[in-house]
Amino acid sequence: MKPILNFNQLTAHLRTLNERKRVAVVCANDPNTEYAIVRAIEEGFAEFLLIGDSTVLKKYPALEKYPEYIKVMHVENPDEASVEAVKAVRENQADILMKGIVNTDNLLRAILDKDKGLLPAGKVLTHLAVMQIPSYHKLLFFSDAAVIPRPTLQQRIEMIWYAIHICHNFGINKPRIALIHCTEKVSAKFPHSLDYVNIVELADAGEFGDVIIDGPLDVLTSCERESGDIKGIYSPIEGQADVLIFPNIESGNTFYKSVSLFAKAEMAGVLQGPVCPVVLPSRSDSGLSKYNSLAMACLICNKK
Amino acid sequence: MKPILNFNQLTAHLRTLNERKRVAVVCANDPNTEYAIVRAIEEGFAEFLLIGDSTVLKKYPALEKYPEYIKVMHVENPDEASVEAVKAVRENQADILMKGIVNTDNLLRAILDKDKGLLPAGKVLTHLAVMQIPSYHKLLFFSDAAVIPRPTLQQRIEMIWYAIHICHNFGINKPRIALIHCTEKVSAKFPHSLDYVNIVELADAGEFGDVIIDGPLDVLTSCERESGDIKGIYSPIEGQADVLIFPNIESGNTFYKSVSLFAKAEMAGVLQGPVCPVVLPSRSDSGLSKYNSLAMACLICNKK
Repeated sequence: MKPILNFNQLTAHLRTLNERKRVAVVCANDPNTEYAIVRAIEEGFAEFLLIGDSTVLKKYPALEKYPEYIKVMHVENPDEASVEAVKAVRENQADILMKGIVNTDNLLRAILDKDKGLLPAGKVLTHLAVMQIPSYHKLLFFSDAAVIPRPTLQQRIEMIWYAIHICHNFGINKPRIALIHCTEKVSAKFPHSLDYVNIVELADAGEFGDVIIDGPLDVLTSCERESGDIKGIYSPIEGQADVLIFPNIESGNTFYKSVSLFAKAEMAGVLQGPVCPVVLPSRSDSGLSKYNSLAMACLICNKK
Repeated sequence: MKPILNFNQLTAHLRTLNERKRVAVVCANDPNTEYAIVRAIEEGFAEFLLIGDSTVLKKYPALEKYPEYIKVMHVENPDEASVEAVKAVRENQADILMKGIVNTDNLLRAILDKDKGLLPAGKVLTHLAVMQIPSYHKLLFFSDAAVIPRPTLQQRIEMIWYAIHICHNFGINKPRIALIHCTEKVSAKFPHSLDYVNIVELADAGEFGDVIIDGPLDVLTSCERESGDIKGIYSPIEGQADVLIFPNIESGNTFYKSVSLFAKAEMAGVLQGPVCPVVLPSRSDSGLSKYNSLAMACLICNKK
């Protein structure tokens, strides 16, 4: 498999697989979610179970157009919709969970429920996103812009594992993973930079398999070869990072929002940790972004 | 004065002032610093005292071309250059300090020296930068990408004061200042979001004069009106921030580096706190960026 370098290639690759993943959508009450659903049906890689409010779902023109690919479950309220969607995954009626217009907290409560939820004991819940940036030559994955405020060393290691698996799904056999900081210096003032030393040692010992992990590095040295050259810093990442692991949620979130706004990047993202990929877009995400996230989830979903 | 909306307007404005600020440069040993010096001379708003190594400075073609605007002081080593530059400011031989190719730590040591330095007791040393982003309609100021790892409430308040003063110098009479976080929710899990509540209360009470301060906001809600509308969030910033105050150095630095790299932004920055503006570019900054920083320093310098 050749590496998938952009979102068009992602769609093209999914088309070649010729199989539909089953997606349970909680409260698909908005035009952007509908755009994502209809397009995924038309591209041929997904079918849907829409769980929500009957009055809203009645309005879906797609329901009449694609009755073989859309089932509907009417429920009374968003809480119930979340619970039913989680149940559908547990009972093997769905491979992927997707959030429509429902409060994230409602859905997370159902996912994190100890008895009836989707997160196996001991697994780390984290957000992994990918951007197609017009001024970068390939996709750029990053974590965590949305869930873990200040990861522990163990959580960082799990984030890296998730990223490696996703990279493999995207055909990137030897991912280059940059551990982000504001400089290249390790300092006890910044505990995450000490974690990075540990992680690089683990990587050098072969713990993560065939990867290149380096840090602390800043975003420039990670993604632009020239910057490292000027500063006299050599990193095996060589300014060609596939993955950026951010030190905390503020920096991850700043990256996501400033690059999507100012560099006109297209975005996709999923929650990792639960037994199935969870598409958890922000309400303000575009239809295209919701579609890309859905496509990403279908690619990395190992079920079926 | 009309607001300065981009770096060309900054140069044009400085030309109209028809006065040269005196700049002491420590170890101007690189072509990018030389570019900035020559251009500032030609635009007519600066003259220079170059302090450094005699072998390097001899090579300056600008020395012969503009002898009336360049003085040279030969010293033995970078430490001495830093000390002499600080002394020049203290003895009113220079209005502005600029770093060439010298280790930042060397220069900071001289600036921060309690007896012979430039930082008055009790003043906060912080970095304030400004970007010209092709996809934004005006200049965007931000702090702190380089100096304070985790500002205290008092330091945040000082950072805001510096930003307000600089905005006034740029002709922005009522600056819109966004206090950045990853969501719009205040939470005890994020102490900076509690600081923000205090700061907004101070601003509402008129403490900062004629400004609009709001937060916590994310970068999107701060800089794009539509995002706030979709999320149903009203902020008096109205998606038109002039200033972003970041919660910590990791997020500020991520903003600076990712937007300059991926959105092709031009950058300028100065250190605030010392008795004069200090231009402290990174070694990898372009000639244009060093020139813009110098121009910014000349605009905000109140001496002479």
